[in-house]
Amino acid sequence: MRTAFYISDGTAITSEVFGHALLSLFPIEFEHVTIPFVETVDKALEVKKQINLVSKQSGEKPFVFHTFVKPETREIIDSSDAVIYNFLEHFVSPVEQELGIPAKPKSHRTHSIHENSYDYRIDAVNFALANDDGSKVTDYEHADVILVGVSRSGKTPSSLYLALQYGIKAANYPFTDDDMDELKLPPFLAKHKKKLFGLTIDPERLHDIRDGRRANSKYSSLRQCRMEIREVEKLYKKERINYINTTAFSVEEISAKIIADAGLHRYKY
Amino acid sequence: MRTAFYISDGTAITSEVFGHALLSLFPIEFEHVTIPFVETVDKALEVKKQINLVSKQSGEKPFVFHTFVKPETREIIDSSDAVIYNFLEHFVSPVEQELGIPAKPKSHRTHSIHENSYDYRIDAVNFALANDDGSKVTDYEHADVILVGVSRSGKTPSSLYLALQYGIKAANYPFTDDDMDELKLPPFLAKHKKKLFGLTIDPERLHDIRDGRRANSKYSSLRQCRMEIREVEKLYKKERINYINTTAFSVEEISAKIIADAGLHRYKY
Repeated sequence: MRTAFYISDGTAITSEVFGHALLSLFPIEFEHVTIPFVETVDKALEVKKQINLVSKQSGEKPFVFHTFVKPETREIIDSSDAVIYNFLEHFVSPVEQELGIPAKPKSHRTHSIHENSYDYRIDAVNFALANDDGSKVTDYEHADVILVGVSRSGKTPSSLYLALQYGIKAANYPFTDDDMDELKLPPFLAKHKKKLFGLTIDPERLHDIRDGRRANSKYSSLRQCRMEIREVEKLYKKERINYINTTAFSVEEISAKIIADAGLHRYKY
Repeated sequence: MRTAFYISDGTAITSEVFGHALLSLFPIEFEHVTIPFVETVDKALEVKKQINLVSKQSGEKPFVFHTFVKPETREIIDSSDAVIYNFLEHFVSPVEQELGIPAKPKSHRTHSIHENSYDYRIDAVNFALANDDGSKVTDYEHADVILVGVSRSGKTPSSLYLALQYGIKAANYPFTDDDMDELKLPPFLAKHKKKLFGLTIDPERLHDIRDGRRANSKYSSLRQCRMEIREVEKLYKKERINYINTTAFSVEEISAKIIADAGLHRYKY
């Protein structure tokens, strides 16, 4: 298997996202190796040795995706026995020309605490945890969005992702079996109807997920899953609540759709 | 302020990460606009209109970073009145030549549920929540890593980030004032000493953070913060527990350092 290295003097997240997006266009598997915080010449020489060893042992030049601020470490990696993709550098000149100013690279700017969005994110994580799964229903005036849906439809991971990635304060509230006889919005949700965003999921997928937690229970039965989904979707339509079916989507996709559909303000880019 | 658009038929996360990394090399501010899920010709035409309007009203061509799989939508965006950076495409040919096979673009491959790492991530999020803040100390044999540290040193956001981004099962356990008289590892931690990773933080920063939660308390006093940090750092050294000072680092940086220093296996790339 061909090896792909993602290397940086920072987190290497940018290299990873770019390299992964590029390699995912090809229908073959890669061995992925991420090496963050290559901040010294010694460390860079060590990494170069590692790359050269892989090249020698496999007989195939590894791919290297890197972002470096300091030239002295970058040049060492560039001299490795590998196919190097210095993808940022390629675009720097065109942007310099377009903006009419020179680039001013600075370490740790992309994923660092110095973004002023940082405190928002930690606050948002604390908010998501305190307002997870209906554990608190009295603080919804501070929520940016309130996710609603049945148990295991993706509310908690989506709330946490919105908080960690975007600094968005997302509460979430579950509709349970007890609510189903005559499903309606409780007053604390009705009061914030504009903030509600519904999640739904195919009953078969919900049944699979619930069965993994409580096999052969009423909770996990396909009959129960079908009934709950039918009821919440009816509610979403009746109350004109925006909603999405999460079955085929990842947490990234669900979050991106919620932000776009609800027109949420992001605190972080 | 110059506008930068991040556009895609998927989440637009790849465009954002790349564009943000590139623009962060320049010491000026941008207005950022992300438009995900541009999947139809109609939607693409609407976005083109939006770009052209910004260009006309501001008198400056916006920057557009995009990733598209389908040529019919991409071509519409490419024909906008903007500076277009089709950054993936530029690198496709060199990789095709290197690998000797053609690219096979497919929608929603980069950030989609179809990665087999997906279930790991949801499991890891559930694990992090169930094992947050010492709420459960009996399941550490299933943890990939156990973060330890004093209250507000960054344990919870780091655990959640490790889970959501990498599928790593991270528990976390707090050392509290009651533990400080004679700080040592409780048996349930000592048993899993190899999995422990310590967080520390500058006492002044800790004091600031705690004061935001409980002003003028013993808990938030600088004296108390200094004492707790002194004690946990002493413990880390005595027990030879890997640790990092989180003061100057973002959640991304803390997580990347933990993965690198503890040699953790990632379930997602």
